[in-house]
Parts: sequence; C-alpha cells; structure tokens
Amino acid sequence: MLHFDSDYMEGAHPKVMERLMATNLEQTTGYGTDSHTLHARALIREAVGNPDAEVYFLVGGTQTNATVIASLLSGCEAVVAAETGHISVHEAGAVEATGHKVLTLPAKEGKIEVEVLDRYLRDFFADGTYEHMVLPALAYISQPTEYGTLYSLAELEEISATCHRYGLKLYLDGARLGYALAAEGNDVTIKDLGRLCDAFYIGGTKVGALCGEAVVLKGKGLIPHFFSEIKRHGALLAKGRVLGVQFETLFSDGLYLECGRHAVSQAMKLKAAFTAAGYTPAIDSPTNQQFFRLPNPLIDRLSESMTFEYWGPRGDTESTVRFVTSWATTDEAIAALAAAL
Amino acid sequence: MLHFDSDYMEGAHPKVMERLMATNLEQTTGYGTDSHTLHARALIREAVGNPDAEVYFLVGGTQTNATVIASLLSGCEAVVAAETGHISVHEAGAVEATGHKVLTLPAKEGKIEVEVLDRYLRDFFADGTYEHMVLPALAYISQPTEYGTLYSLAELEEISATCHRYGLKLYLDGARLGYALAAEGNDVTIKDLGRLCDAFYIGGTKVGALCGEAVVLKGKGLIPHFFSEIKRHGALLAKGRVLGVQFETLFSDGLYLECGRHAVSQAMKLKAAFTAAGYTPAIDSPTNQQFFRLPNPLIDRLSESMTFEYWGPRGDTESTVRFVTSWATTDEAIAALAAAL
Amino acid sequence: MLHFDSDYMEGAHPKVMERLMATNLEQTTGYGTDSHTLHARALIREAVGNPDAEVYFLVGGTQTNATVIASLLSGCEAVVAAETGHISVHEAGAVEATGHKVLTLPAKEGKIEVEVLDRYLRDFFADGTYEHMVLPALAYISQPTEYGTLYSLAELEEISATCHRYGLKLYLDGARLGYALAAEGNDVTIKDLGRLCDAFYIGGTKVGALCGEAVVLKGKGLIPHFFSEIKRHGALLAKGRVLGVQFETLFSDGLYLECGRHAVSQAMKLKAAFTAAGYTPAIDSPTNQQFFRLPNPLIDRLSESMTFEYWGPRGDTESTVRFVTSWATTDEAIAALAAAL
Amino acid sequence: MLHFDSDYMEGAHPKVMERLMATNLEQTTGYGTDSHTLHARALIREAVGNPDAEVYFLVGGTQTNATVIASLLSGCEAVVAAETGHISVHEAGAVEATGHKVLTLPAKEGKIEVEVLDRYLRDFFADGTYEHMVLPALAYISQPTEYGTLYSLAELEEISATCHRYGLKLYLDGARLGYALAAEGNDVTIKDLGRLCDAFYIGGTKVGALCGEAVVLKGKGLIPHFFSEIKRHGALLAKGRVLGVQFETLFSDGLYLECGRHAVSQAMKLKAAFTAAGYTPAIDSPTNQQFFRLPNPLIDRLSESMTFEYWGPRGDTESTVRFVTSWATTDEAIAALAAAL
Repeated sequence: MLHFDSDYMEGAHPKVMERLMATNLEQTTGYGTDSHTLHARALIREAVGNPDAEVYFLVGGTQTNATVIASLLSGCEAVVAAETGHISVHEAGAVEATGHKVLTLPAKEGKIEVEVLDRYLRDFFADGTYEHMVLPALAYISQPTEYGTLYSLAELEEISATCHRYGLKLYLDGARLGYALAAEGNDVTIKDLGRLCDAFYIGGTKVGALCGEAVVLKGKGLIPHFFSEIKRHGALLAKGRVLGVQFETLFSDGLYLECGRHAVSQAMKLKAAFTAAGYTPAIDSPTNQQFFRLPNPLIDRLSESMTFEYWGPRGDTESTVRFVTSWATTDEAIAALAAAL
Repeated sequence: MLHFDSDYMEGAHPKVMERLMATNLEQTTGYGTDSHTLHARALIREAVGNPDAEVYFLVGGTQTNATVIASLLSGCEAVVAAETGHISVHEAGAVEATGHKVLTLPAKEGKIEVEVLDRYLRDFFADGTYEHMVLPALAYISQPTEYGTLYSLAELEEISATCHRYGLKLYLDGARLGYALAAEGNDVTIKDLGRLCDAFYIGGTKVGALCGEAVVLKGKGLIPHFFSEIKRHGALLAKGRVLGVQFETLFSDGLYLECGRHAVSQAMKLKAAFTAAGYTPAIDSPTNQQFFRLPNPLIDRLSESMTFEYWGPRGDTESTVRFVTSWATTDEAIAALAAAL
Repeated sequence: MLHFDSDYMEGAHPKVMERLMATNLEQTTGYGTDSHTLHARALIREAVGNPDAEVYFLVGGTQTNATVIASLLSGCEAVVAAETGHISVHEAGAVEATGHKVLTLPAKEGKIEVEVLDRYLRDFFADGTYEHMVLPALAYISQPTEYGTLYSLAELEEISATCHRYGLKLYLDGARLGYALAAEGNDVTIKDLGRLCDAFYIGGTKVGALCGEAVVLKGKGLIPHFFSEIKRHGALLAKGRVLGVQFETLFSDGLYLECGRHAVSQAMKLKAAFTAAGYTPAIDSPTNQQFFRLPNPLIDRLSESMTFEYWGPRGDTESTVRFVTSWATTDEAIAALAAAL
Repeated sequence: MLHFDSDYMEGAHPKVMERLMATNLEQTTGYGTDSHTLHARALIREAVGNPDAEVYFLVGGTQTNATVIASLLSGCEAVVAAETGHISVHEAGAVEATGHKVLTLPAKEGKIEVEVLDRYLRDFFADGTYEHMVLPALAYISQPTEYGTLYSLAELEEISATCHRYGLKLYLDGARLGYALAAEGNDVTIKDLGRLCDAFYIGGTKVGALCGEAVVLKGKGLIPHFFSEIKRHGALLAKGRVLGVQFETLFSDGLYLECGRHAVSQAMKLKAAFTAAGYTPAIDSPTNQQFFRLPNPLIDRLSESMTFEYWGPRGDTESTVRFVTSWATTDEAIAALAAAL
C-alpha cells in the first residue's frame, strides 16, 4: 500500500533520530533552558537574520496558532483569516476557545488578496457602528497555504504594509514552511518573513521532526511573559530538549531545506505523472501538496493500492483529491503511482 | 428634530413607569426571588402555554444571548447563525468571549433558509474530518430578524425539525418579538415559540421596558444551575424586582402586544408615506424596521430635520437607510416625516 | 415584618425616580451617548478631581468587577484579593470565566494588610519558579469591605504604593462607597480614590439607584477600546440614559452622600440598640453593615418579626448575623428593632 | 556535576528510544489512529482492568490537566484541589484559562484529608448563598503528591466515596504514577485507580518517555467528543504514533513498573545516605522525591558538585531542599552524593 495522505506519516528524518539517540542520556535542565535549545534558537535567529528575534519551541500547529494568536490579542480584538485558513476550519475552535473571534475573508486558492483585505479594513473603520464589533488587530496567513499555493514577495510586502497601515499585526503559519522555501519560483526567503511578519512559525512536525514548531517573534517584548503564556496554554514541554535537539539538527547543515527540496522534487514528479496520464492539476501548486479532479472510477481503482484524501465533498462523476509528498517519499512510491495511473 | 434611529430612544412605557413608582418603596428580597418576579414568571409561562417552562429575567440582549448560548454549549460545540445575525456581527464577540465559535450561514434578508441549513448540516456530518472542527450544536435565529423580516410558522416548524434531526437545539432571539407578534400576516404565536424552540427570549428593552429580557427555557433542567450561570455572566440583577415589575406590567392587560401593535401601525404609515413619495422599500418588512434605498441628496435633506441610520456603507448616488418606529412613535412624527418627503 | 437583609431591598431614592419619570419621554441616542450620561460623567469627573478620568456606567457589581478586571489583565496575569473578597467568593467565578485566576491573601476583617501584601509580592518575585505561576498584576480591594470595615487614608496610600512598586495596578470595589464616605472617622475622600486607584467604581445599586455602577479609570487609554469591552461582556445598556439619569441625580445636590449619611446614621442607632441590650458587635464596623454574635434563641425570636442574614455557618449555641441599613431605613424600623431586643 | 533537580533531565528510557527508531519509517495514519496507539490503548485497558475505559494520549501534564478538567466541567462548575496541588500553583493558570475556578483546601504534606473535604462540601451545600458561588463538581488529587506522599487505598476509597456522595467526580494526576506504584508500602494498584477515579492519567514524561501522558476515562461517553476537545486544547499530536509507540513500550514487559522501581530504589539509598549523615527527611516520602531541611552552609557546599531545588523560600540558617531520582539515576551518582555529605 502506498500512502500520499499527508506529510506526517513517518517518524522523523533519520538525522534527527540519530541526534535524539546520541544525546539521550545527557542530563539537561527542563523547559527549554538546555544548551541544545539555546543553540537551536541561535541558529534560527541567524537564519532569520534578526539577532533580536525571540524564538520559542512549541509542540504542534494548532497549539502554536492558538498560543501565539491569544497572546497577541487582547479582549475585543480579533484575528482576520482566509475563510479556508486552518484556524478558521480545522482547529476545532482553538482560537475561539481563548475568547477571540476569527474574522474570515473570501480567499483565492487559500490566499488572501491584498485588495480584499484593504477593502475589508477600510469598510470596517468607516462603519459608524464598529465599536459594537470585534476589532481586527491581527492577520493570519499561511505559507504555503492549505491549497499548496504561495504568496510572492511582492504580495507579502503589500499584505504586511496593509496590515500595519490599519494597525494590525501580521502572523504567518509556516506549518509546511520548508516546502515553500524549496519551491521553484518561490521568491520569499525566511529572512523576508523575519522582516515582514510580526510573528511566524517554522513548522517541524510536517518537515522532518517527530513534533515541534519554532515560533519567531520579531522584537523583544512583542509578547510580554511569553514563557508563562506557553505554560498557561499547556504548550510548554518539560523536556524542552526534545524540541531543541530536533531544531538544532534541522537547522544544521541545511537539513530543513533538504527536507523541503526532496518533497517538492517528488511532488513535481507526481504532478508530471498525472499530467502524462492526461489529468491536469486542479490548483497550480508548486509545493508538496497536489490537487487533482479525477473521475470517481479512477479514484476507486487507485484506492485499492494507495491512500490519499478527498478534498471537499465527493461529486457525482468526479471528485477532487489531494496527494501529498514529504521528506520521506521514495522514488519507488512515485514510480508505483505513475504505473497505476 | 425627529428620531427614527431605533426603538430604544425613550424610557419605558408610561404604565411600566407607573408600576415602578407605585412599588418603589416596597421591600423585597433580591435576585429575582420577589413576588413581582414570581408573578411575571407565571404570566409568561401562561402566555407561552407551558407550565414547565423556566423563565428568567436578564438585563440586555447581548448579555442574554451570550449567557444562554454559553450555557447551552459545552467545549467544542458551536452555534450556527445567519451571517447577518446580531451575534455574528454586532455583539463585539460576546459569544466567542465565552469560548465558542459562531458558525455563519448565508442569509436571505436576515433569515436562514431551511434548505441552506439542512445542506450545511448534511455536508458537515458527511465530512470525514469533522472531528477536527467545532460541532454545530445550537442554531440561533431572530424573530423579527435584523432586517425586519419574519419566519412563517411553516418555516419555523421546518427549521426546528431540521435542528432536532441533526441533534442541534434551537434558540430564538426575540429582542423585538412584540413587533413580530403584532405584524400583519404573522402566523407565529408565542405559544409556537414555546413549542418549537428549546430556548428563546422575549425582548423588553426595545418593546416598552427601561431594560430587561425574559428568557424562556423549554423544560426544567435544560440548563442546570442557570441561576449561577446568570450570576457568573454578570447578568444577575441585585434588585431583580426592577425586571419583575416591568414584565409583570407588560404581560398584564395585553400591554406587550399593545406596544407591538402601535409601533407596527406607525411603521406601516411610515412605509405608506415613502411609497406615496415614490420610494419603494428595499426589503419587504412587515415590522417596525423599514429600509429604503434613497438618493443621497434626499438623505442629506432629511437629515436636517430627523435622525435615522445608514444600513451598510453609503453608495455614490444612493444609499440604504433604516427608519424605526416604536411603542412611543407619535402620529405627529409620522406626519412630519411624510411632509418632509 | 422588618427587613435588614441588605441594602438593595427597595427601589430607588425618590429623587432618582422623579428624574426618571421627568425624562421618560425624552428621545435620546443609545449606549451612553445621551446628554444625561455626558452630564453625569462630568459631575463624577469633578467629584473625583480628575478631568482626565474616564467614566463609564455599567449595570451591576459582579458585571463591573469582571469587565474591569478582565480588561486590565492580559493572558497569564492575575488579580490579588482578600480571601473574603466578593470576587473571591460570591461572584460565581465571574472573573475566572474571563480566564484569570483570583489569588487570595488572608484578610483581617475583610481588609488586606499592607505587610501581608508586601511579603506576598516579595516572596513571589523571589521564587525561582515564578514564571510557572500566574503573574500578580492587579490588586482588588473593597471600600467598605464585605465586613463593613474601612481602609484609612494611610493604609490606602501604602497599599497603592506597594502595588505600584511591584508593577501591580490597584482597583477598588466601591459597591457601597457612599456608606464609606459618610462613615464617622473615615478620612478617605473620593478624590483620594481618584488619586490612589488606577480604577474604581462608585456603587449605585446599593446606594440609591435602581441599578448602576460608575467606573472611574484614572487616565485616558488605561483600557483601550473599553466601550467595546463593555459590549463584549454584555454590560452595555442600550438605554444608557437609564444609568446616566440616575447618576446625574445622585451626583447633584449631594444626594449620593445624603444616602450614605442616612444609612450610616441608622446603622449607628441600630448598633446602639444592640449595645444597650448587652450585645457587642462582632466587628467594629462604622458603616451600614453591622455584625453581631447572638444566642440562637434570640435569633429565632427576632426572626419572627424581621429578616436578616446569617454570616457564616450557624453555631451550636450562638451564631453570627448581619443587619444592614440603607438610604431607606426608617426611624420606625430602628425603633421596632430596639423594642424587640 | 550531579543532577537531582527533577525526573525529566534525561531523554527516554533506552527501550523506548529503540522502539521509536525501529518504527521510525513505518507509514501510519495520524492523530492516534495508528496501530501502535491502538495497541497501547489495549495494553492500558488491560492494566486498568476495565475493557470499557477510554484511553487517550496527550503530550504533557499541564496540558492534560487543563484539557481533562475543562472537559469534565461546565459553566459555573469548579474543581477542588489541595492548596499545594500542581494545578493550584505551578500551571500558570491553565485551568482558569478555560474559565473555571480552582477551589483550594488546606493540605497535609500534599494530601487532601477526607475529613477536610467532607466538612468543606457539607458546609458549602449548607450555605444559603451557594448559588452565588462556583459549584464544586470535581476533585483533583495527585498520586504521588507534589510532596512525594501517597494516599493509601483506604484513604482513596473514602475520598472517592465522599466525592460521589456530594455529586463530584474524582480526577487523579498521575504525573509520577510509576513511582507511586513501585513504592514500598503502597497498597493502591492501577486497577484501584481505574475503579475509584472517574478519570486519571498515567504519566509518561517523568517515567521513561520523551513526553506523553495517558488519560484513562472510566466509562464510554464520560466526555462526549473528547477527541475534538483534545484538538481544541491544542493537545492533539499529528504524529500520534510518537505517543503510541512510547506507551506501547512502557506497558510491555513491565517496563513502566521497572522505571518506577529503579527510581524508588535509588531514592531510598539517597535517603539512607542523608540519614547516615545525620539529616532526617523533612517529609516521610516513600517515592522518588526526597525533602530535607539542611544547614545553608551544607547546601552551599553540595551546590558546588550537584544541582537540586529549593523547596520554598530559603531560611536564615537552614532551608528545605528537594532531591529527585528517576529511572535513569545511576549508582555512581548516589555514591557520589553520599560521599559528598
């Protein structure tokens, strides 16, 4: 059986496992005060190009989103997201559980268009009753998006400028960031994110780690008492080293990008196999998630030898499905898929 | 200056004030345990036709919505509302402040269409990932809606049945309920609400009281410890009698309906005046809120002698405005408006 | 039957009712933007002696405490209170409902002693694990306390200084403030509160109003978007005038202090009656709440002709009870009580 | 340098690491639906002796406490804990962040005494004002406690019965459960916990795992939608297998108890070393945490060659310190400590 459901189907990249083994019996202090975590922080600060950035390691994506967003908002403030954004749909109301509304905007293949954002904010502040509504104070975007698409540098510059013009902060969900950085045509570097976002996270769980996400806050003091906030949200790992060692490894010798490049390369081969078989992608994704609208009988036949996800409800004659590659996808798997088409 | 901004521009109906004066120096116990509150409860139980109904008096609409909705939901459960619903837009995130998401459906002139609700719930439970989403457990509708429109009895029966088929409870916001009950063509009685809704509230603030909303819960034990929940939401009035006396008066001698009838009657005259002047309503509202799309110069001219609200952003040549009547709107005011058109 | 249960057993002071009647049919805008509310704000700013103070009117005490405290705290921050404080015990967890812990200190007759507060804060910040705990960021005190006692000016100066030295804000619950201001021996003026507290409220519900509490924030911008926060907590009254008119009346012609003086004067007569009958107060309270430890048979006998509250659990031979006077307590009631002893 | 700060200073037990390595490239579905997690659940159900128990794996202790407690409580309900309980002190308000109060009882060496609990609940429900307070609906205890002490089976039976008599559920924090089960004199089995507690968790982080806690719910449906609740609290691990594999290993071949026995055995040697040097324990702990009141000069001298924690503020001449052993504590470390005394 082949598996293209997701990018979290294996454990960790072998180099990450090796380091966890090699350091296993070291005795370290807890809660992220150990030397591995400090080293990982330094490596990420350097990658981001901001010596003042604050870096924290949390365990998973939903947890990271809820903790950062709640910590950046107060009282009546809300976060603006694409209606297809992960926090809007697939996080079981984790943001609302912290007391804050997720305001949604129509999205184009997962992306918020700057014109839509600008018009929304202009209309909001022009509305005489806005004090009776929640206040948009933060924008949430993802790179790549839930549809595999990417913001260009120009788009990101504009979104950042628009947010700041209306007093909003910008937060970027990089659950699959490695696959964005490695995509052909991508012109947004991790340093750009450090410059344009008030906060973002570098996804580990889906890019080579057992678990773990690295939160990068632009400036010291952006979130006072963030250590305690992490604890309060149940997101502080006692053995912080588990995250520190993993990110130390991912950010040494270019491993994070290597994970990204492998998955993207396999995704392009997968896309080519579908195209060669006469199926054009439903979305033009340059990253590790590929979407196709396929005849239901083909879907049924493929399902006998491989797993993948439906994307949206199943249609009467054809349906949209998602195939995902990862740092671990083998050439054999791609070849077998191609042969099956 | 004339005022058509809203239905909360005066104090209370003179009969309500009289009763407050007459009872002012009575000594009563607090928190709704006094005889006036008990009497008001009995009157409402009788009006609703349900001797098992539990009746509580809260102070205002947003407070009532947040308190009841939070008490009916647990953890990952959410409330479904029209995207134009008051809780979705104009309550500053009061529901989200209690930790629950407001799921929104497209609405037609303020109303949720039963087909839309049914399709949404069917698709939701058919989605294999639904456990990663909030669970729709309650539907919120308003009667009349924020656009002055009404659900027919047939529509309400269907919405109630659809909710219960999918395991949702039904809650109805009756902030302006008196104006619905008194509307021409309305076929939904307060007894129907008691039968079809798990919970609803009878609005006092906008229908003759200084403040106050009467919550009706269908069965004993629907919300355990609701007294404490009210307290916890800061919604328990120490001098509960202030609410009890008002609702006692409104539900004696038909005063509540009398308030409703007066406002609706004045609204129909107002609508006729606009129609006679050549302006057709933007929405066909049978209640005390009337909406018109008027040329901007006319709006400017009217604004010199009267106040009213813009409804949505102002257009380049014409804009939509709202005129509201109440139990207190005088014939003179309507005549002056007609003369000004 | 006589009633000494509480100070919220009547409606409003007759002068307040008169003004509500006189202004009843005025048409005003909503949500506290009317001229009466603006006037009431100006009167309170003047009384407080701070032209920069922001004044808002909310409906009840629990609501006011939760709204102000939640708005002054963020994330992991907590409020410190006496273990007997109203927010610690009798508000059904309204503060915790907003996500914040109430840290409690041992109290002396309802008061926090400055030494206790200072030692607590010094130990807290000296504890190496304090980032794993909630952060004390606000102190809550009441004047008079739940035991009728008062902070002296010297004590209040010290508490305020201690709070500010450790980075805490100071918030004072003045649910019964009028009875403190009128107490013999009291040396704390309302101007002192405006100077020493970051926020406090002037209680209306228990001092002559139907309902209503006036929140005073020391400086502009102390709580950004406080209007929206009030709405979000369900504490924004549509007919804001109802509160505005009442506080306008209470702060004209010295009515607020007059209410206070009457109740205190009656309480002193009541205390004298008990003393004359051989019962010394359990607590030396100079305000309108009086506490006595009485033999159970006497309690039983008094209960036949009057109502009052047990204060703590009933003992085997004697129990502690509370008698409360108000602006409305008559000479006849005091005389009848004295006769019954 | 020796380290006795805590039981989370190393990675995972070597056998756990081996299994993680051996299964690393297996492809599994996410979110705890993989075969290792299913196997781990079955092993724990068997250990608990309850085929109907529901078992879920979460990442850390604070997260587990907040998620379970919030899911067991609704609205105005609260959890009762020892004032020294971990949720009361060292979880940065994670329970309050979910909207619920932690009611605290005086404790004896970390334990709630059944008489204290019974009196508290009896007084609570006898108090006429209890509807103005939060409702105790759950009791939280820990085994071993934060002071290393244990409840006996008789005590646990009584606490469970008392809780259930007053309508409370019982939840037990087993962060260090392995060290309780292995303690000399302990008569509480894991089957007893499954019988007497409505919910409890088996700690992995401190007993041999990299991270992970296994929640055991007594009956099906105790918490409806608990999967979604876990997600909502940010506690759902995408690679659920990471937890599944670890608990599968810990609950195979008696490894969990082996970890416990090793740590307890080393703790007893450590205690003996102190006793031999003339220092009696401050608390009679039969588990892996040992507390001593030592002269400050000795503390200073020991600090040169080893790390450990102050327990409470430092005294003028002597202070209380904590030494902790774990599954990984070596004989050499104990010998070196003994030599240093």
